[in-house]
Amino acid sequence: MFETIKNQAYEANMLLYRYGVAPFTWGNASACDRETRVFAIKPSGVPYEELSPDKMVIVDFDGNKVEGALSPSSDTPTHAVLFSAFPKIGGVVHTHSLNAVVFAQAGLPIPAFGTTHADFCYGDVPCARALTEAEVKGEYEKNTGLVIVEHFRENKLDENAIPAVLVRSHGPFCWGKDAKTAAYNAAVLEIVAEMALKTCRLAPDAQEIPSFLLDKHYLRKHGKNAYYGQRQEHD
Amino acid sequence: MFETIKNQAYEANMLLYRYGVAPFTWGNASACDRETRVFAIKPSGVPYEELSPDKMVIVDFDGNKVEGALSPSSDTPTHAVLFSAFPKIGGVVHTHSLNAVVFAQAGLPIPAFGTTHADFCYGDVPCARALTEAEVKGEYEKNTGLVIVEHFRENKLDENAIPAVLVRSHGPFCWGKDAKTAAYNAAVLEIVAEMALKTCRLAPDAQEIPSFLLDKHYLRKHGKNAYYGQRQEHD
Amino acid sequence: MFETIKNQAYEANMLLYRYGVAPFTWGNASACDRETRVFAIKPSGVPYEELSPDKMVIVDFDGNKVEGALSPSSDTPTHAVLFSAFPKIGGVVHTHSLNAVVFAQAGLPIPAFGTTHADFCYGDVPCARALTEAEVKGEYEKNTGLVIVEHFRENKLDENAIPAVLVRSHGPFCWGKDAKTAAYNAAVLEIVAEMALKTCRLAPDAQEIPSFLLDKHYLRKHGKNAYYGQRQEHD
Amino acid sequence: MFETIKNQAYEANMLLYRYGVAPFTWGNASACDRETRVFAIKPSGVPYEELSPDKMVIVDFDGNKVEGALSPSSDTPTHAVLFSAFPKIGGVVHTHSLNAVVFAQAGLPIPAFGTTHADFCYGDVPCARALTEAEVKGEYEKNTGLVIVEHFRENKLDENAIPAVLVRSHGPFCWGKDAKTAAYNAAVLEIVAEMALKTCRLAPDAQEIPSFLLDKHYLRKHGKNAYYGQRQEHD
Repeated sequence: MFETIKNQAYEANMLLYRYGVAPFTWGNASACDRETRVFAIKPSGVPYEELSPDKMVIVDFDGNKVEGALSPSSDTPTHAVLFSAFPKIGGVVHTHSLNAVVFAQAGLPIPAFGTTHADFCYGDVPCARALTEAEVKGEYEKNTGLVIVEHFRENKLDENAIPAVLVRSHGPFCWGKDAKTAAYNAAVLEIVAEMALKTCRLAPDAQEIPSFLLDKHYLRKHGKNAYYGQRQEHD
Repeated sequence: MFETIKNQAYEANMLLYRYGVAPFTWGNASACDRETRVFAIKPSGVPYEELSPDKMVIVDFDGNKVEGALSPSSDTPTHAVLFSAFPKIGGVVHTHSLNAVVFAQAGLPIPAFGTTHADFCYGDVPCARALTEAEVKGEYEKNTGLVIVEHFRENKLDENAIPAVLVRSHGPFCWGKDAKTAAYNAAVLEIVAEMALKTCRLAPDAQEIPSFLLDKHYLRKHGKNAYYGQRQEHD
Repeated sequence: MFETIKNQAYEANMLLYRYGVAPFTWGNASACDRETRVFAIKPSGVPYEELSPDKMVIVDFDGNKVEGALSPSSDTPTHAVLFSAFPKIGGVVHTHSLNAVVFAQAGLPIPAFGTTHADFCYGDVPCARALTEAEVKGEYEKNTGLVIVEHFRENKLDENAIPAVLVRSHGPFCWGKDAKTAAYNAAVLEIVAEMALKTCRLAPDAQEIPSFLLDKHYLRKHGKNAYYGQRQEHD
Repeated sequence: MFETIKNQAYEANMLLYRYGVAPFTWGNASACDRETRVFAIKPSGVPYEELSPDKMVIVDFDGNKVEGALSPSSDTPTHAVLFSAFPKIGGVVHTHSLNAVVFAQAGLPIPAFGTTHADFCYGDVPCARALTEAEVKGEYEKNTGLVIVEHFRENKLDENAIPAVLVRSHGPFCWGKDAKTAAYNAAVLEIVAEMALKTCRLAPDAQEIPSFLLDKHYLRKHGKNAYYGQRQEHD
C-alpha cells in the first residue's frame, strides 16, 4: 500500500541529494495521493545514503502518522498544511540551499530578473512574514505552513504559477504537480537565487524582467499553448 | 544524410553539458552546413543524458524543419537568423551559464579586463538592446536573432572577432567557426564573466586592458601571424 | 592500546578531507579518552591520502607525546588546552575552511542569521581577541588555546552549546561530544559562514534570528525534549 | 637525456590540471636543471589529457629550443628570464586561476590577511607594473619576465620567500625550489586570493596580519628552526 507515493517521495528526496540542494540531512521531500488524502515523507534525520522507499513515512493531511516504523521529518506539519491548502500540488520540498537561504535570512523576495526565473516561476519568489513569538512557541511547524498560505491568500498569488516561497530567517519551501517537479523547482530556485544575488551586487538598480517577457517565457513553457519541449512533456 | 553536422551538433551539446554551462536542458548547440544551407540542432527539452546524434533535428536557414522526428529547440529561429547573417560561422550555442546571465540581467557588457578575455574575444562582449513588447509578442525567437545582428551592424562589430553576445534579461549566445568552437567559447565566456564580475566588485574603477595588449593577445592566438599552439591548430 | 581514539581521530580527519574543509594538509582532528586523559591526533604535515589509524599520535592533556612514531600536528598544544578546559568535549578540529577564515581575517564573529545556524550553534560564533606579540613569540599554540578559553570564560559562553570559535587572523577551531561531531561542526560552520557572508552583502542591515526562534531550533535538535531525528539520535 | 626534468615538468603540469587552477590549456609548468642550464616546459596549446613526459620541450636559459618535436609554451621566454634571474628556483608555473586573475585585473597586490597566506608566502603577493606599449610590441613574453624581476629588485623582495607575483591585466606566475612546489604554490595562491577577495568585501578596512604573526607562521614552516611537518619534509 502507498507504494507509488513512497517511491515518488524516495526518488524526490534522492534528487535533492543529487542536485546538491540539501547538505547532510537538511531537506525533505513528500509526495501526496489526493484520493486517500495522505502523503509519503522522509523520516527525520536519516542520511540520504541510508534511505529507501520503504523507510518513507505515511501521514494524513492533519499531520497524523498513518504508517511507517520511523518518525517523519520534523517539518511534516508544514507539508500537511500545504497539501491541504493548495489543492493541485502533488509534492512538497524543503531545503537549506545556500543562496535561497541568504534571501530568507535577508528577509527579501527573489526578484524575477530574467528568463531563467520566468521559465519556472511567474513572478518574484515571495518571502513570507516572520512568525510571531506565539507562533514559534506554539505549533511551530504547522504555523510555518499557515504563514505561507496566508501570504499567498493575502497577496492573491497563484500557487500553481509560483511554486516556491521563502520562510523568513529559515529557507525555501517548493512544490509542484508531483514530487519530482517540486525537487526540480528547488534546484532551479537555488540557481535563480544565486543569479539574482549577483545581479543585485553588480547593478543595485537592475530592472526586473518586463511583464510581457515574463509572460512570454512562463507561458511558452507552462501555458495552454506551450511550445517548449516535446509535445508529451507539456503541462 | 546530414550525418556530419548531426555528429557535430551532438558533440557540441554534450560539451555544454560537460563544461557545466547548461544546467538541466537549458542550452542548445547547432552545427551548420554552408553548402546545403541547413543546420543540425538539439531537440527541445530533451535531457542531455538522452541525446544521440540521430535525435538532432535538421532545419534550414529560414527556420523550417527539414528532417527529424522530434521538435527542434524553441530557440531554433535565433540560430537560423545568426547562420543567415554571419556567413563565416559554423556553429551557434545558447546557454544560461550563471555569470554570463548575471551581466545579461544587469544589462551590461562584459568588459575586457584582461588577457584571459583577450585570448578569446577582441573587445567587450556586448549586451544587445531589450526587445520591444511588439518584438516579444511577435516572432520572439526570430526577433532575438535580429536584435543581435542589429547590434553588430550598428556598432560595426566583427562577429568573427567577437564570438559572443548577451541578450538583455536572458543570457548569452556564442558562435565560432564550428560547433565545437562555439561550445568552447560559451565555456570561456562563463569563466571570463565570473572574473569580470569579481573585478568590478574588488575595484569599481578597474581599467580595461590597454588596446595594444588586447591586440597582442588576440592576435597571437587568432591573427595571421599567430604563434600560440602547435602550427596545425592555428586558425 | 588507544585503538578506539586512534580510529575515531582517523575517521574524523578523513571526514574533514571528504567534507572539503581542509585543503592539502591544512586541518587536524583529535579524539580524546577522558579516563586516561590522552587524545589521538593527526601527525604533522602528512597528506590525508597517506593517513591510517596507526599513524595517529597519542598525547596527554599537557601536550606531551605518549605514543607514536611521528610528530603530532603543530597545533597539538591548542587541542590539549581545549580538552583540559572543556570537560565534556570528546573531539577537537581545526581547519582553514574558506569562508570561516574570511570572518577570522576580518576579525568578526559569524552572526546567527537563520535556522541553519541555530540548528548547530546556540548564538553567534565568536571571534577571539588577537594574540599579543608576547603570546605569539612564547608558547604560541598553547596560548592560542588559552585565548579561546579566556573568551568563553569572560563572555560566559557555554562551550557545549557553542561548538566553534574563530582565532583572529587565523581560522576556526570546532569541537563536539566526539571527534565525528567536531568534524561535522566544522563542515556546518563553513556552510553557515558562507551564508552569513552573503547575507551581510545582500542586506548590510540584516537582522539576526529572533531569540525565540534560535531557542526553538537549537532546542528541538539538542535540548532535553529534542524531537528532531529518530529517538536514538538525540543528544 | 633530460628525463628527470621532463618527468618533473610533466608531473607539475598534471598537478595544475588536478588542482583546477589551469582550465583548458591555460597554464604551463617547467622544471629546470641548474647544471646544464636548461628547463623542460609544456608544449603550446596541447590539452592536459594528451600530455606525456616525452612531449615536454627542452629550452635553454636564453629561450632557445634544445630538444623536442613540439613548439614550447608561448610563455617560454618568461620562464627563461625567471630561471636566469632567480638562482635558487627549480620550477616555474603560470596559470589563469580565477581569483588570482581578478587581483591582476584590478592591478592590486594580494594582502597577507592571515596565517593561510603566511604559511606559504612571507608578505603580500606583489602586482608588477603594467608593461609599456613598446614592451608589449617588442619581445613581449621576455619583457614580462623582466618586469617581474625589476619589481623584485626595486622593492628588495626575496624571491625565495615570496614565491608568486601578479602580472598586471594578466595573471599569476609562481615558482619554488622544484616544479612540484611551484604547482603547489599556484594552488595555494588561488585559495589565498579568494580568501583575500572576500575579506576585502566583508571588511573593507580589514587589517593585515601583524608582522610577528607573519614571522611565526612563515618561519615555523620554512625557517631554519621549522617544526611543521615530519623532519624530512623541512626545507
